[in-house]
Amino acid sequence: MAKKYVYLFSEGNESMKELLGGKGANLAEMANLGMPVPPGFTISTEACTRYYDDNEKIDPEIEKEIYEYVKKIEATTKKTFGSVDNPLLVSVRSGARASMPGMMDTILNLGMNEEVAAGFAKLTNNERLAYDSYRRFIQMFSDVVMEVPKKSFEKIIDEVKEKKGVKNDIDLNVNDMKELVKLFKKYYKEQKGVDFPSDAKIQLMEAVKAVFRSWNNERAIVYRRMNDIPGSWGTAVNVQAMVFGNTGETSGTGVAFTRNPSTGEKKLYGEFLMNAQGEDVVAGIRTPQSIDQLKDIMPDAYNKFVEIAGNLEEHYRDMQDMEFTIESKQLYMLQTRNGKRTASAALKVAVDLVDEGMITEKEAVMKVDPKQLDALLHPQFEPNALKAAKPAGKGLAASPGAACGKVYFTAEEACEAVENRKEKAVLVRLETSPEDIKGMYASEGILTVRGGMTSHAAVVARGMGTCCVAGCGDIEMHEEAKYFTIHGVKVSEGDYISLDGSTGNVYIGKIPTEESQVTKSELYRKFMGWADKYRTLKIRTNADNPADAKKAVEFGAEGIGLTRTEHMFFESDRIPAIREMIVSKTVGQRKVALDKLLPMQRGDFEGIFKAMEGRPVTIRFLDPPLHEFLPTKEEDIEALAKELKITADELHTIVTSLHEINPMMGHRGCRLAVSYPEIAEMQTRAVIEAAINVNKTGMSVVPEIMIPLICDLTELKFVKKIVVETADAIIKKSGVKLDYHVGTMIEIPRAALLADEIAKEAEFFSFGTNDLTQMTYGLSRDDAGRILEDYFNAKIFEADPTAKLDQSGVGKLIKMAVELGRKTRPDIKLGICGEHGGDPSSIEFCHNAGLNYVSCSPFRVPIARLAAAQAAINADKNKK
Amino acid sequence: MAKKYVYLFSEGNESMKELLGGKGANLAEMANLGMPVPPGFTISTEACTRYYDDNEKIDPEIEKEIYEYVKKIEATTKKTFGSVDNPLLVSVRSGARASMPGMMDTILNLGMNEEVAAGFAKLTNNERLAYDSYRRFIQMFSDVVMEVPKKSFEKIIDEVKEKKGVKNDIDLNVNDMKELVKLFKKYYKEQKGVDFPSDAKIQLMEAVKAVFRSWNNERAIVYRRMNDIPGSWGTAVNVQAMVFGNTGETSGTGVAFTRNPSTGEKKLYGEFLMNAQGEDVVAGIRTPQSIDQLKDIMPDAYNKFVEIAGNLEEHYRDMQDMEFTIESKQLYMLQTRNGKRTASAALKVAVDLVDEGMITEKEAVMKVDPKQLDALLHPQFEPNALKAAKPAGKGLAASPGAACGKVYFTAEEACEAVENRKEKAVLVRLETSPEDIKGMYASEGILTVRGGMTSHAAVVARGMGTCCVAGCGDIEMHEEAKYFTIHGVKVSEGDYISLDGSTGNVYIGKIPTEESQVTKSELYRKFMGWADKYRTLKIRTNADNPADAKKAVEFGAEGIGLTRTEHMFFESDRIPAIREMIVSKTVGQRKVALDKLLPMQRGDFEGIFKAMEGRPVTIRFLDPPLHEFLPTKEEDIEALAKELKITADELHTIVTSLHEINPMMGHRGCRLAVSYPEIAEMQTRAVIEAAINVNKTGMSVVPEIMIPLICDLTELKFVKKIVVETADAIIKKSGVKLDYHVGTMIEIPRAALLADEIAKEAEFFSFGTNDLTQMTYGLSRDDAGRILEDYFNAKIFEADPTAKLDQSGVGKLIKMAVELGRKTRPDIKLGICGEHGGDPSSIEFCHNAGLNYVSCSPFRVPIARLAAAQAAINADKNKK
Repeated sequence: MAKKYVYLFSEGNESMKELLGGKGANLAEMANLGMPVPPGFTISTEACTRYYDDNEKIDPEIEKEIYEYVKKIEATTKKTFGSVDNPLLVSVRSGARASMPGMMDTILNLGMNEEVAAGFAKLTNNERLAYDSYRRFIQMFSDVVMEVPKKSFEKIIDEVKEKKGVKNDIDLNVNDMKELVKLFKKYYKEQKGVDFPSDAKIQLMEAVKAVFRSWNNERAIVYRRMNDIPGSWGTAVNVQAMVFGNTGETSGTGVAFTRNPSTGEKKLYGEFLMNAQGEDVVAGIRTPQSIDQLKDIMPDAYNKFVEIAGNLEEHYRDMQDMEFTIESKQLYMLQTRNGKRTASAALKVAVDLVDEGMITEKEAVMKVDPKQLDALLHPQFEPNALKAAKPAGKGLAASPGAACGKVYFTAEEACEAVENRKEKAVLVRLETSPEDIKGMYASEGILTVRGGMTSHAAVVARGMGTCCVAGCGDIEMHEEAKYFTIHGVKVSEGDYISLDGSTGNVYIGKIPTEESQVTKSELYRKFMGWADKYRTLKIRTNADNPADAKKAVEFGAEGIGLTRTEHMFFESDRIPAIREMIVSKTVGQRKVALDKLLPMQRGDFEGIFKAMEGRPVTIRFLDPPLHEFLPTKEEDIEALAKELKITADELHTIVTSLHEINPMMGHRGCRLAVSYPEIAEMQTRAVIEAAINVNKTGMSVVPEIMIPLICDLTELKFVKKIVVETADAIIKKSGVKLDYHVGTMIEIPRAALLADEIAKEAEFFSFGTNDLTQMTYGLSRDDAGRILEDYFNAKIFEADPTAKLDQSGVGKLIKMAVELGRKTRPDIKLGICGEHGGDPSSIEFCHNAGLNYVSCSPFRVPIARLAAAQAAINADKNKK
Repeated sequence: MAKKYVYLFSEGNESMKELLGGKGANLAEMANLGMPVPPGFTISTEACTRYYDDNEKIDPEIEKEIYEYVKKIEATTKKTFGSVDNPLLVSVRSGARASMPGMMDTILNLGMNEEVAAGFAKLTNNERLAYDSYRRFIQMFSDVVMEVPKKSFEKIIDEVKEKKGVKNDIDLNVNDMKELVKLFKKYYKEQKGVDFPSDAKIQLMEAVKAVFRSWNNERAIVYRRMNDIPGSWGTAVNVQAMVFGNTGETSGTGVAFTRNPSTGEKKLYGEFLMNAQGEDVVAGIRTPQSIDQLKDIMPDAYNKFVEIAGNLEEHYRDMQDMEFTIESKQLYMLQTRNGKRTASAALKVAVDLVDEGMITEKEAVMKVDPKQLDALLHPQFEPNALKAAKPAGKGLAASPGAACGKVYFTAEEACEAVENRKEKAVLVRLETSPEDIKGMYASEGILTVRGGMTSHAAVVARGMGTCCVAGCGDIEMHEEAKYFTIHGVKVSEGDYISLDGSTGNVYIGKIPTEESQVTKSELYRKFMGWADKYRTLKIRTNADNPADAKKAVEFGAEGIGLTRTEHMFFESDRIPAIREMIVSKTVGQRKVALDKLLPMQRGDFEGIFKAMEGRPVTIRFLDPPLHEFLPTKEEDIEALAKELKITADELHTIVTSLHEINPMMGHRGCRLAVSYPEIAEMQTRAVIEAAINVNKTGMSVVPEIMIPLICDLTELKFVKKIVVETADAIIKKSGVKLDYHVGTMIEIPRAALLADEIAKEAEFFSFGTNDLTQMTYGLSRDDAGRILEDYFNAKIFEADPTAKLDQSGVGKLIKMAVELGRKTRPDIKLGICGEHGGDPSSIEFCHNAGLNYVSCSPFRVPIARLAAAQAAINADKNKK
């Protein structure tokens, strides 16, 4: 038997979303529940993927099958497609597996032509209905299928209305409608050079192809990338017998939610329009009435709708978003789906549904998208102010939240503005570097011209919870002249801009922001309690100082997965000592400089240990290449040379000798500890002494020392020996007992490949997926912006691998390392501390790969908790 | 039963080299053949590794075992160790599995002390022998075991000789010897603070430990790294009853080869000294006599030696290198081993042994070290001139051969000197870049301060067959002042230096060089014919122009595995067009520039196809980041801007926008083809049109188009589509038939991990092990110099992974990719085109991994042919 590509609504059900799309599956379900759904059928998503496999052609067999199903609808409705006397008119609508709002517009009244309109007028005894429907069809079909923009037709309507001296479409009479049909068809022919198609079958097949094409339009691709929807899914097409909300004053059309989608309040929420077809409600030409008013106008239809809405919510056990039409007082359901909602509504609905006994806690946990939580943790623009604003450009949504402040081009100037003039600053840079940290802290938001989702700016901003738009290629930078232009508009130092780190939008001027209060609520705590109950993955945080550590604990972190010791070195009171260390010519000189750093590092660690109150803390030893600590500008080099009491020439020689062509793959990580064992020695001393000091106050810190950038067992052995010898000597001398662990990052492909070897010495692995992704792909995150843009445009990549863990490639390495590592050391502790640690789909991967914990920036801890719970629940479900 | 660590010579044999070391196994073999070998035993290599496992201690059980074996020697010799009346004296010598010449000096006459010397004098009735032997022992033991340098003792001898007014040691009488013993012991006590050890057992154990320690001295580590000997092997220790070449005029000692080790001529070759002990022969104090003269002096001993030498050569079926001692006319054999020989001797001996019926062709193929062939392909220093020279510093032996010329610091100046003044130039650079290519071609040799074995300079130089010393950290560079200093010595522009690219040595001043003639000989052709007969791996070459291609064919290349199209772009007539392309703002402008490049590329390809006469040619599409084609210096930018008719500001903006932080992982390879499909289109056109043109002349070129830097299937699909559409259109239009293949480099870890996916589109894989190694290790070859130095010093790495294929990590990826690729496409063609393609051990890996071919630079083709043959023969042997 040939493969089946088309399904009557009566053949489908709710569980067939993959095949029928969400809309089709739900129409089928409603039909099966005995609800009033106009008859129709769904062309499956497989027909769409087949369309692309066949080089964007519909196979004749499938075309034939579609016509067979038209015949079935004809039989049910006792009307005939293309008939003049008793025409079957249909709507054509797209419907993918996941809701993709606004991806393609609906086509109504398909099957119309001059003769059909006349026949339909006679049949319905409603000439205005017939020609109103016809002109609407021409408008919609031209726009959606034939790329003749809607606007042109609206202009023609406006001209006719003006001529008649009326204001609303509804005031146009049947002759006006006939005039419009004539004018529309004339305009269409002018534009396309051919007559408007009158054959119903051609209309249908063109409409189906348009739906398939819409799956790969740019808007759809961007939406999918943002929402992790694979391009391979395809969309289904729903073909349904028309019902008419535009027969007159006993008809209408509307949309409604079973609960308020902004607040979650349990109360029917929606609007409708009398004597109208679907698109009028959203078009905003006439002001719709509130759904409550329907009660008075058509109480029977209203009561029926309330009943159905209640049944649907109970049936789907979630808030529903419905479309309906009333034709001559008769209610028809055209769509239902789980309603989109704001983050706070999502929380409230989930908790309420549990309280109402409709769903279980586990189900509630699954009802909130972890990414939505972000909105609750960061300031957002005031919604009304945002509505009025128009973005001037767009970059990568690198760190969520909204920010508004005056533009500054250097970290120093931003700091100065904030500290001395109490201004709010937005730091705008070509790209940031570790020297900018203080300015980044001081700023409301960060905007960079270059760099991807894991560029320095993006990573640091996320860690701080500061809004950041990165890699905004729309900007032409004139740093020295202290201005930039964005799409030609000039923005100078001190001008206000506003950034939306959740969308990547850049606005010129002020948009006020506001804090969310939800996280402080009982509702939030109750909900997150459920998440914690069902997850098995531990959530740690990446924190480099006591303040971040404290914040993360508030957010629910159960330990620190990554403390980057180098961030502490950039503080103004430390950088002289680290620079002194770098320019040292002998081990002796270097030790003198390191001795200055020791008490500071020890103090840092004591602060972090105290903030974490005995929770595990993983401390990574010095990682970045040393040149990052040295200045690059001539005047800074001269100043520093003076400070260090060496000549500028000597310092130049040092800076030059430290220069690297590919610093990412250069002298950093454990390679520094090999060249300068005394650094590892000092850092060990700081960690161990801090732990001993803090434990004396009654805590029981068990520090975890993490050696970065390991690629070979011998290397880890070498550095571990330094750590163990130093630590054991201090512990022995102190006379107290202290446990500590030594482990490594797995961030170089070779370490993953040889994890069985490495595990001989490593007590834990932490997957550094930032670097691991870069090296597995051979793609530098700092240089990826431009490349990824081209790859998205060419449809080569669907997601940015530095933001969303590449499960097939990098994931394969991780799974290998997990298996090999556990083979050597069954109780090895496994975690992830890359940026991916805060990404829900990556967290699900980590759960399934059997990791013990994920570590992410403090602001992503709640997201990670929820995502981990969902991963556990999903995995459980899949097991059954 | 406890593990056995000590073996009598009679317990061993030739096959036990792993356990007994080469020297021990051969002593055992000679003893078993009934040859006159003084009795002794070998402490196994396992005792050495045990010594290191036990933290540099000899286990008491092993010590006990050693004493038991001393007892066995006492029984055989009927002498007693440490006895005064009838003392057993022994020699202690190291002996690893592979010969490591000069690693540790021998200790003779061990067991001596004041009383033993007196007793020995009485016993032998030769007082001078006794005290000569005693003073020698003190000298050797102090130097080798106790680190009191030999030189100090020689000074004492010189003082005594001066006092006596004699010239030779041999002229010192018994009283002088006694005096020396006294002075030596006094000096020893001054140096060490304790008496010279007199207990024979202590002497023995200290000597054994010294041998074990010597395994990890710096000299040994460097030697092992250069010769691919693993540190885990350890060394054995041979303890043997002494025979004395210093009893008087009926005694002597010598060394000899069965054939001439310089030329391979079949004639006993060696020298001896009368009345001497071993070390006198090499010490050069007295001039030894030729072995022929022994015939007259002691005909019986001579004849006996000739007979034994013949038997040994026949037994080992190879040229032998032997040590012997004659004690009172009695011949003793102290060592035999396969003799080291020059490359030309190796060839001659191998071919002669086959002609003499002693060995098979396969065995002959195994007798020449492929690395030795290098010496035959490149100019070398005149041996005598080299002997007199002292290196001023040392870098990496990056490209073999010798070079001598005047120092220039820029490519332009080097070119100018060579072209206008007919000078010989050596180009000295911090590091080279593609702009330097012409100057590198013009120069005799290249010296760089930075960069590893696969830095730009190293790779390009090897490709050209030009001598190169890279990463010479001994140099302090003052480029602008046109001089450098090396260990403090200043070398200015125009001064002569000489480079040895085979050792990495840098010499100040002129050392004349000479060409080798061997490759033109019948001998060479015969030998290489055998290699070709037994190898199964195909050998291709990396060649970017017809001249290199022709050279490679002469060297035996069977195809081109890698043509780097970008090298052609740096030619002075092309770079304007490529630059015009880079600064293009529109696709249209870019196509205009590409149209200029098209005929040039087509011409290049035609030339290469013709040179290869129908052999397969793999052409890699544009790979390097575009900024490599743009200048970086201010004045060059200004000049170029003028040339391109844009402002310097505009050009600056372009240069800045192309700047990348990690260019190695940036916008290059197929990523360029994604951003600028028109480049891939032009290159396809050039390849296909060239093939059509050349095939019209009667050849049958089947070009292989290689897409670099692939990390994902979709990416390959995208670029392949451009190639196939362009190619097919041209072929169709031309009306002729042309086959072509499209494949990819596997040089990014992810491509190897997902090779089953990639193979869906790739008709061949070429492993780009340069980049694959860099990314698998997270180690930039351009920045690796300093890091590797520290890693070698810390004994973390034994080899440079960019030079010698890392079989455990990178190799694991290659094996995965081979398996996955063949799973999808069983007939996929697999090759390697990284630098490793010319490294013998890496070639063996490729053979065993089941690759179809290796590709290497022209000058390494003969080496690869031989290495491939050896790999095949070895694999065959292991199968049996």
